[in-house]
This record gives sequence, structure tokens and C-alpha cells, in this order.
Amino acid sequence: MKLLEERIRKDGVIKPGNVLKVDSFLNHQMDVELFDAMGAEFKRLFAENPINKILTIEASGIGIACVVAQHFHVPVVFAKKSQSINLDGESYITKVESFTHKRTYDVIVSKKYLNPEDHILIIDDFLANGCAVNGLIDLIRSAGATVEGVGIAIEKGFQEGGRLIREKGIHVESLAIVESMNDETGEIVFRS
Amino acid sequence: MKLLEERIRKDGVIKPGNVLKVDSFLNHQMDVELFDAMGAEFKRLFAENPINKILTIEASGIGIACVVAQHFHVPVVFAKKSQSINLDGESYITKVESFTHKRTYDVIVSKKYLNPEDHILIIDDFLANGCAVNGLIDLIRSAGATVEGVGIAIEKGFQEGGRLIREKGIHVESLAIVESMNDETGEIVFRS
Repeated sequence: MKLLEERIRKDGVIKPGNVLKVDSFLNHQMDVELFDAMGAEFKRLFAENPINKILTIEASGIGIACVVAQHFHVPVVFAKKSQSINLDGESYITKVESFTHKRTYDVIVSKKYLNPEDHILIIDDFLANGCAVNGLIDLIRSAGATVEGVGIAIEKGFQEGGRLIREKGIHVESLAIVESMNDETGEIVFRS
Repeated sequence: MKLLEERIRKDGVIKPGNVLKVDSFLNHQMDVELFDAMGAEFKRLFAENPINKILTIEASGIGIACVVAQHFHVPVVFAKKSQSINLDGESYITKVESFTHKRTYDVIVSKKYLNPEDHILIIDDFLANGCAVNGLIDLIRSAGATVEGVGIAIEKGFQEGGRLIREKGIHVESLAIVESMNDETGEIVFRS
């Protein structure tokens, strides 16, 4: 998606260790008009899929998912990290490793909000090693629901998450796929 | 707001200890079409305010804030709970007590995204004792920015947060104010 690639070139900051900071528009400050354009594009890309629910994970997936969901006219469910005492104990649970935070955490969804009849689109801001998305796929399959696809804002194409999920036969669409980036020159190459 | 009050009566669950569970439509599963109607109502209520940014707090405020922001054509910034190693160290920080999780945590916003020129609307799902909103007001004032108002989905009118914030002269609008609720009868009374 040209608009997102241009925005990454303009406002993204490449840091050592293959870190791409996009917190000025994607995951700390959020440009909801960009999210709206992303929603229209996801709707086009998943037009054939009978999606009735969007699943994301807190915190940075929630904003994108809610704006995208308006294009599909479906509710959003967000998976929570770590147990909250406000939940009933009636939850699907999986474990996800976070490289950003260097720890493993529990990811949970109430059983009330994932059902066997659900056809689910997963939405998240980043796909790198795929841990978060694989955790969400686990939760969906625990409920006997159907994964219709995965919609990602930015995929790090040089990490294996996207390839491994596509090899499982899952329909993955990333609006910008970074092939390589260089924190010294600031150069960034997108997959065409 | 009639639509929200009716939805709370229909789908809210009152639990002992003055807990109102609205996780089927507000803060776990999220009805984005309801959020859109809430956004239109906040736009009407804050029509006179020169708002250029919305501030919320992770996680359950983010979805509402992003859909509401589309009505104001402004970006959203969400305050993060606890330090993330992806932040630069250049952040405004305050402490917030959580009664739900029975602990105190740091709440932070990058200094890049709060500036003295900003006129900010705070959006959150719940207002009870006011700890989260007061933390966000602290962050805004640390930046020298202006608090234009506070927009809340559900206020627990029998707790003191809303009163104390209004007494500071801040414009608070809650779309539904619960005056009292009874977990045995299921009765709920809204402030008219």
C-alpha cells in the first residue's frame, strides 16, 4: 500500500537491531485517517472472506482493528496480556513470547467472545517472528472458530513469521513489507 | 446518551462490589458502530472546544478513542502502562493506582507527542475514582498543554472521581452516569 510505505519513509525511524519506530503515526500517536485508508484496503483484500469478527491483541493492535472493523461492520475482540481479575476464569489462554519486552506472557480471550461459528480476521500492527499472530491463531482454534485471514500493517519480510504463517495455508496480507533497512543510511526497501 | 444507557441495561452485568461488566460491547468485545455513535455525541458536546488531539490510556480506552477521533479529525495518543524498552527515555511519567488490578503503575507518554500548543480531549471507557483521568491530566499539564475536556463512556456517579474533576473546573461529559445499581435485582438507575 503506497500510502503506508510513503508514510514509513517519511516518519519511520530505523534504529540499530532492525528496530523500525513508527510511533509517531501507528502505535503510540495514531493517525486515524491513515487507519481508515488501511481499513478500506483490508476490506478490498479480504472481500471474498465471510468475516464476522476481528481479533487483535492489546495494546497497539486495538486502534487499527477498531477503525478497520468499521469497513467490515463487525465487532472487534482484543486478546488481553496476562490475567485480569475482572475476567471470569472462563477464558482461552495461550502463551506468547515478546522479543520487545524480552519475556513470555499469557494471552487470554473470554470464551464468550470466540465461538465455533466465528470467521475471524486477525489484525495487528507488526508481523516479525509471528509470535503474537500465532498466539491469536491458537486462541481461535481452541474455540473451534475459523481463521479467515491475517491483516498486518507492517511486516518485517526479513524475519520468518510471515513465511511460516503463509506456509500453513493462511491468507496473510501485509500493507507494507520491509525487505531490508539500514539504520546508518536510513535506507528502507519494500517488497514490491 | 439513550443508546448507551439502553445497551448497558440490555447487555451490562452487575456483579457484587459495584462492578459493572460491559465487556460484551465496550472493553473486551467492542461494538464499533456504538463507538461511532458515541463519537458523534462527543463531537456535539465538545463542539466549542478547539481540540487538536485525543489522549487515552491503554488498553480499553484505545478503541473508543480512535473511533471518536474520526469525528474530530485529530490524532490519538495513548499513554502506556509501565516502561517499555522501545521508548526513548524522553517521556512524561506519572503514577496511577488501579483498583481493578490492586496495584500502582507508571503511566508514560513520549514527550514528542504532548506539546504546549496541544488542546487535548481525554477519552476513556470508565470514570469511577478518577485515578486514570487524573493521571492523564497530570501528563498533559507536565507538557504545558491544555486540557479541553474529558469524555467518558460510563461514569460511576456514586464514586467521587467525576465530582472532583468537575470541581477543578474541567469540562467532563459522561455518556451514561450510573447513579446506583443492585447486583441482586439487576436494577440500574442512571442520572437524568
